[in-house]
Amino acid sequence: MPSSPASSARLPSITLKPQGVKRLRRGHPWVYSNEVEMNAAAKAVPPGALVALRDPDGSYQGTAFFNRHPLIAARLLSEKRGATIDRDFIAMRLGRALEIRERLISTPYYRLIHAEADGLPGLIVDRFGDALAIQVNTAGMERLTETLIDALDQVIAPATIVLRNDGTVRALEHLPETVEIVKGRIDGPLALEENGTRFFADLQGGQKTGWFYDQRDNRVWAAGLSKNARVLDCYSFSGGFAVLCALAGAKTVTAVDRSQGALDLAAMAAEANGVSERCRFVKAEVFQELQRLAAAGERYELVIVDPPAFVKSKKDLAQGLKGYRKLARLAATLVAKGGYLVTASCSHHADVDSFAGQVRRGLQDAGRSGRILRTSGAAPDHPVHPALPESAYLKAQFLALD
Amino acid sequence: MPSSPASSARLPSITLKPQGVKRLRRGHPWVYSNEVEMNAAAKAVPPGALVALRDPDGSYQGTAFFNRHPLIAARLLSEKRGATIDRDFIAMRLGRALEIRERLISTPYYRLIHAEADGLPGLIVDRFGDALAIQVNTAGMERLTETLIDALDQVIAPATIVLRNDGTVRALEHLPETVEIVKGRIDGPLALEENGTRFFADLQGGQKTGWFYDQRDNRVWAAGLSKNARVLDCYSFSGGFAVLCALAGAKTVTAVDRSQGALDLAAMAAEANGVSERCRFVKAEVFQELQRLAAAGERYELVIVDPPAFVKSKKDLAQGLKGYRKLARLAATLVAKGGYLVTASCSHHADVDSFAGQVRRGLQDAGRSGRILRTSGAAPDHPVHPALPESAYLKAQFLALD
Repeated sequence: MPSSPASSARLPSITLKPQGVKRLRRGHPWVYSNEVEMNAAAKAVPPGALVALRDPDGSYQGTAFFNRHPLIAARLLSEKRGATIDRDFIAMRLGRALEIRERLISTPYYRLIHAEADGLPGLIVDRFGDALAIQVNTAGMERLTETLIDALDQVIAPATIVLRNDGTVRALEHLPETVEIVKGRIDGPLALEENGTRFFADLQGGQKTGWFYDQRDNRVWAAGLSKNARVLDCYSFSGGFAVLCALAGAKTVTAVDRSQGALDLAAMAAEANGVSERCRFVKAEVFQELQRLAAAGERYELVIVDPPAFVKSKKDLAQGLKGYRKLARLAATLVAKGGYLVTASCSHHADVDSFAGQVRRGLQDAGRSGRILRTSGAAPDHPVHPALPESAYLKAQFLALD
Repeated sequence: MPSSPASSARLPSITLKPQGVKRLRRGHPWVYSNEVEMNAAAKAVPPGALVALRDPDGSYQGTAFFNRHPLIAARLLSEKRGATIDRDFIAMRLGRALEIRERLISTPYYRLIHAEADGLPGLIVDRFGDALAIQVNTAGMERLTETLIDALDQVIAPATIVLRNDGTVRALEHLPETVEIVKGRIDGPLALEENGTRFFADLQGGQKTGWFYDQRDNRVWAAGLSKNARVLDCYSFSGGFAVLCALAGAKTVTAVDRSQGALDLAAMAAEANGVSERCRFVKAEVFQELQRLAAAGERYELVIVDPPAFVKSKKDLAQGLKGYRKLARLAATLVAKGGYLVTASCSHHADVDSFAGQVRRGLQDAGRSGRILRTSGAAPDHPVHPALPESAYLKAQFLALD
């Protein structure tokens, strides 16, 4: 057995209740706090420390991050006996994730690590060429940050690393919100390539990591509907849909967002791709703008609505779903006869059927009928752990309206 | 109001029970037999005749096909008062469906009509250039066959039309099984183009309409995983996956199917695309062949399993789901370390979550872990009616295994 201090043999033991053991055996990578014997030993474990999970008979079940505070108390890292969680372990997981991305995507602009699905719980790494934007969302990964950075140096050797540890989800793990450049420097917006097109991201100040690679494939699809179309792109962010639609031959593209910073980057992308003349960037709150456009009698052959999560927690579900219904109604009203509607939800808590139900109702409210051409999720660099289907947070629906 | 004999004003009236009215108002295109007043008037309507649906007060609700025998008694054609179901009506629906396909797909090889979602209940039309293969699955559409053929002549002017009225689903509507060439002639296999590649279909004798356009986009995706890979394509049919993988740079492709006819067409496609040398076509029962290959120690970097529906009816659900689990286990066993698994289900009755659950269990049975890269449905020429989410019958899952 390896002699490293992190080897499972030397880790504090956490005893699972039978339902916790059962959960792991079913292939689930989490143990909930009520599935753990919350004894003195468990309470003594510092938040996020590595532990050996054991069944009530003391038999080893896996090595995990442990934090007694949140609902998800243990996050599995390895089921191997004697697993050592060190730089080499993380580098191996990074290497496998990299291998998959390189097969799927021809340029180094993608989500490199998508947390549990890539075997690194609580970690998000978005790659922008030789710059990385990282989100550390669990106490366990927080404790390993230095080791992680070493491993990234070994596997990717990035010039720049930004820690975007300002996600609200960190509060669940009692972690503070910070943004920090831990390697290299950032001089303004960073160029990235997506779908053969140049865009710009603000890794330090933009939403989340500064770009949403999850919509990459859906953007191609929307662009495929935009030839000769008047396109309305709501919640446009930095132009991932809008500029691609303009390049695909849209007659005009109107991009609406509440963030001037995001719109400025979208305008930069339009400029860099020579489509500025056909693009307009409007700073506005989307619901209000949709109502204003409807009242003005505007119509579009393609309307795209890709809002932020309306359902932030389970208790928001009913209210959030109403939001999707209303948005679908407002958006559908603006679709010209025979036009197309692309709508999305990135709410973890709204599943694909609930979301589809709200879109259907919204269409009915607007007096519009149509057919669903495509229902899709996030691009493949956002894989899903087979036992965590709920982590498939992104749902997009493409409709042809009558 | 138009004076055509099919105008809704002159049609026999069918009175809906309140729940039937409610269903239509929710945007659903069907009325079930227990939602209809099955009075003498209803019983006098010949199976599949056009009727005016009315609420208990006699108010018009829509024009529909009516057949008192099956569970789905009425299938809505139009909610417009005075709607006339004639050649022009059908031509208008065909025209809209054609317009959408022409925007989505650059060559005339696609599903032109996907039943309810395209506003023509019970009708399937697959287009192969100037040849059409048609499935008429309801008594209502059966009665309109001549009108339909006139409308197709008007909109598409096909050289050849084959009626593939040999689907078992016709029995539900008390319709006989027949195959008939109603226009032009068929001289052996017909060439088609899909994903820029030449394939061959047997419109008269092949499964269903002779080709499965629904997997078009999933085939591109699988091909994207096949560079330098040894590929095993199970239930290969006529080579839609296999030949595309070979063209995308697979080292070898082994295609397995039980039908020699289907394999012969696959071999023709391999030949036509210059990849015969890298392809092998094996006539075998897939479960047996997978076990034989496993016992022989064979491994593949990409395994594709696209079986026929294991769940033919609700009562087959438990048994059919077991089939998906077993197939996932056998297939996963043959995936090389770090390889990929593409698996699909076309069972209407197995929803996406149930199918995903069986794949997950099958992987566990095989002792394999991995991540889901993509979950997808049928290609967009197989649209879904918003109120009939269950008609999204095809589910595909792409996994990277560890």
